[in-house]
Amino acid sequence: MFTLYYAPNTCALASHIALIEAGAPYELKRIDFATSEQRQGHYLAINPKARVPAMGTPRGILTETPAMLAFIAQSFPAARLAPLDDPFAFAETQAFNSYLCSTLHVAHAHRMRGYRWADDEAAIRAMQKKVPESVAACYDLIERHMLRGPWVMGERYTISDPYLFTLAQWMEDDGVDPVRFPGVAEHRRRVAERSAVKRAIAEERA
Amino acid sequence: MFTLYYAPNTCALASHIALIEAGAPYELKRIDFATSEQRQGHYLAINPKARVPAMGTPRGILTETPAMLAFIAQSFPAARLAPLDDPFAFAETQAFNSYLCSTLHVAHAHRMRGYRWADDEAAIRAMQKKVPESVAACYDLIERHMLRGPWVMGERYTISDPYLFTLAQWMEDDGVDPVRFPGVAEHRRRVAERSAVKRAIAEERA
Repeated sequence: MFTLYYAPNTCALASHIALIEAGAPYELKRIDFATSEQRQGHYLAINPKARVPAMGTPRGILTETPAMLAFIAQSFPAARLAPLDDPFAFAETQAFNSYLCSTLHVAHAHRMRGYRWADDEAAIRAMQKKVPESVAACYDLIERHMLRGPWVMGERYTISDPYLFTLAQWMEDDGVDPVRFPGVAEHRRRVAERSAVKRAIAEERA
Repeated sequence: MFTLYYAPNTCALASHIALIEAGAPYELKRIDFATSEQRQGHYLAINPKARVPAMGTPRGILTETPAMLAFIAQSFPAARLAPLDDPFAFAETQAFNSYLCSTLHVAHAHRMRGYRWADDEAAIRAMQKKVPESVAACYDLIERHMLRGPWVMGERYTISDPYLFTLAQWMEDDGVDPVRFPGVAEHRRRVAERSAVKRAIAEERA
């Protein structure tokens, strides 16, 4: 049994979708950001980073979306969620996911979490102002150089797809018009049609 | 043959060390940041992200340090640079590396690359001001919760070790006194003694 610690509208959705696609047994534990539950002792004992997602496994806790996604893919090879027998193709999948966590998600985070990188209110507003540009630059790169279609890695759906889908939920709020990136927008529509994705979203809203 | 595109004093050093530890055949191509070579057409054709590292392989180009490190470990299993036969332990290694790229390296980047996230000069100075605090918070978490000793993952040297070592080169310039983090400082000394690390550093300085 896996326990996914999540909050709605966070990148935890990517691992949630992957668990369903993998056919993994899992339970959800919602962490209440409104009461800053992620910074309370009982959650810090699970994840001292005070963030979601975290995932309980029979061996212990895992964190960090790219690592969790690769773990889910490797733990349920029959679901074929990553090219496990091809180190180069696996690395391409991982490189895409690493770009999402370290560049796209980071650009996005400057809208709501600027306090991580500056204390000054004017500086935090200056960061927010640049988010539409910095996030759009990521989608421009993804659209032109990374997204192969119909899935991120081409003909095969992988762990990169729910991850891109999850972050692409935030485009409009980040001030990026999806019309500018028709490939990303079409990918988002395509992933949204999957039953695992519909189920994950419904479970997080319940 | 692998071709590592690097610049001195960047996180490319982690992959450089890993290539040597793996016994991989490689050549180095230095990208000259002083002339912004990373933004010139011939390099953008290799890596449209305009960053280092990038790695040429017989199958194509790879980017993103965590993906490259896992690829090197998987391509040279005899070097035992990651727990390849244990998905949970592999995920722990990957989670550590993902934290380095998406949190520690990002905190550090606000000192020299603030222009990525704000245009305003005062905001960029405000970001620089917070770097000693945000970088130290990462090392505090690493010291208390992640670094097992003697290596990051415990008794076995892995791809997490050259990566932590590489970023820990920047502590002093980030305004963090290594004396505050004796475990990280001791790890840095231990990794520095390895012949592969000495060789990589000498090659980058040559």
